Amino acid sequence: MSVITIERKVLEKNDEIASKNRELFQHNGLFVLNMVSSPGSGKTSIVERTLEYIKGKLSIGVIEGDVQTDFDAQRVAKFDVPVVQIITNGGCHLDAKLVHDALGNMSLKGIQLLIIENVGNLVCPANYDLGEHIKVVVASTTEGDDKPLKYPAMFRNASVLLINKIDLLPYINCTIEVLKNNAFRINPALNIFETSCTTKQGIKEWCDWLEKQVKNNPLSVADH
Amino acid sequence: MSVITIERKVLEKNDEIASKNRELFQHNGLFVLNMVSSPGSGKTSIVERTLEYIKGKLSIGVIEGDVQTDFDAQRVAKFDVPVVQIITNGGCHLDAKLVHDALGNMSLKGIQLLIIENVGNLVCPANYDLGEHIKVVVASTTEGDDKPLKYPAMFRNASVLLINKIDLLPYINCTIEVLKNNAFRINPALNIFETSCTTKQGIKEWCDWLEKQVKNNPLSVADH
Repeated sequence: MSVITIERKVLEKNDEIASKNRELFQHNGLFVLNMVSSPGSGKTSIVERTLEYIKGKLSIGVIEGDVQTDFDAQRVAKFDVPVVQIITNGGCHLDAKLVHDALGNMSLKGIQLLIIENVGNLVCPANYDLGEHIKVVVASTTEGDDKPLKYPAMFRNASVLLINKIDLLPYINCTIEVLKNNAFRINPALNIFETSCTTKQGIKEWCDWLEKQVKNNPLSVADH
Repeated sequence: MSVITIERKVLEKNDEIASKNRELFQHNGLFVLNMVSSPGSGKTSIVERTLEYIKGKLSIGVIEGDVQTDFDAQRVAKFDVPVVQIITNGGCHLDAKLVHDALGNMSLKGIQLLIIENVGNLVCPANYDLGEHIKVVVASTTEGDDKPLKYPAMFRNASVLLINKIDLLPYINCTIEVLKNNAFRINPALNIFETSCTTKQGIKEWCDWLEKQVKNNPLSVADH
């Protein structure tokens, strides 16, 4: 058994820039999500369904993080919202500096909700604060019900768990109660929603909750 | 757009130890797989089905890499093969040193095939040579057909692609020909097998191919 630790200096530097991002978000009355998950859990589909449902109610911007390609940004741009793509070229997570640079390419005026879709990786993004208000972890039922115990840092640092691809439960070996119990063992304060981007189950509940968080944001644009 | 590069020195040190592992493998006539994938693609299920099919024909050892828990090692140990668990405690990939240390806890005498199951992560393990003969990347149909383009390093460095959970194709938005074409665009030399650990489709084809590779290994135990 061996411990690998990210150098403290790297994380300290990251936290400094994350604080600057946080100030910028507060100054502009932005509520910010950092969406994290394994590759292929359906993060982009969740963003699409969320935009579809919530776009008339809130003004939204999106930052897409990918190792390679701008496929996700193209998908999101169809919803006619401001999108900036970060390509990490092999980098395994977004960091506060990458997000800070991306913010320079987006007008924050009037935006109430900023969704940052991180690189698909259930390990590395857990340690990098981007300045967000909350981390949202998406776990698809097809990944199995043991993932919170096997990748605890991500589930511990998240405020919301979206259990996605709930429509596939009849065909796979995943017990939703076991998955939830495992998630609560790691983080009893998790807000859990069960979603399907195919049937749209749970999208309303998730979006209504999200809208409430944005509206409760003490510096939201409505208050200016 | 920004480039994050792993420090050359770290990789050079890793490659040095990987060479030592490679010598050890050759000396003992071992054929070694490095299995990589996203979390929840079914790597451990593939290992289970492979052990089930091939155990009577080859002597096998397994090294399990996980961020946390020894669930996978417990699953594999039921097949009565030597298993060593590496827990990285947050580390996002195995490296040559971790594997070298694990080898000290396993008698290599008589083993023909060593399966190393890496941490579930489609980004970081791509850059760390463990001394293996081949990388096998597992991609489940539920992750979508765009993954080879979005995570190219892993698909470029692999010799085999197992397209897993093929039984779920009727229920999801994934086109197998698109997935294969995307994989071949990144790596035209990939050996692709379509598998299901539920129906066992493709397991025989994959195992027969693997057995042939092991038997063709010029230093396999049979030749000593």
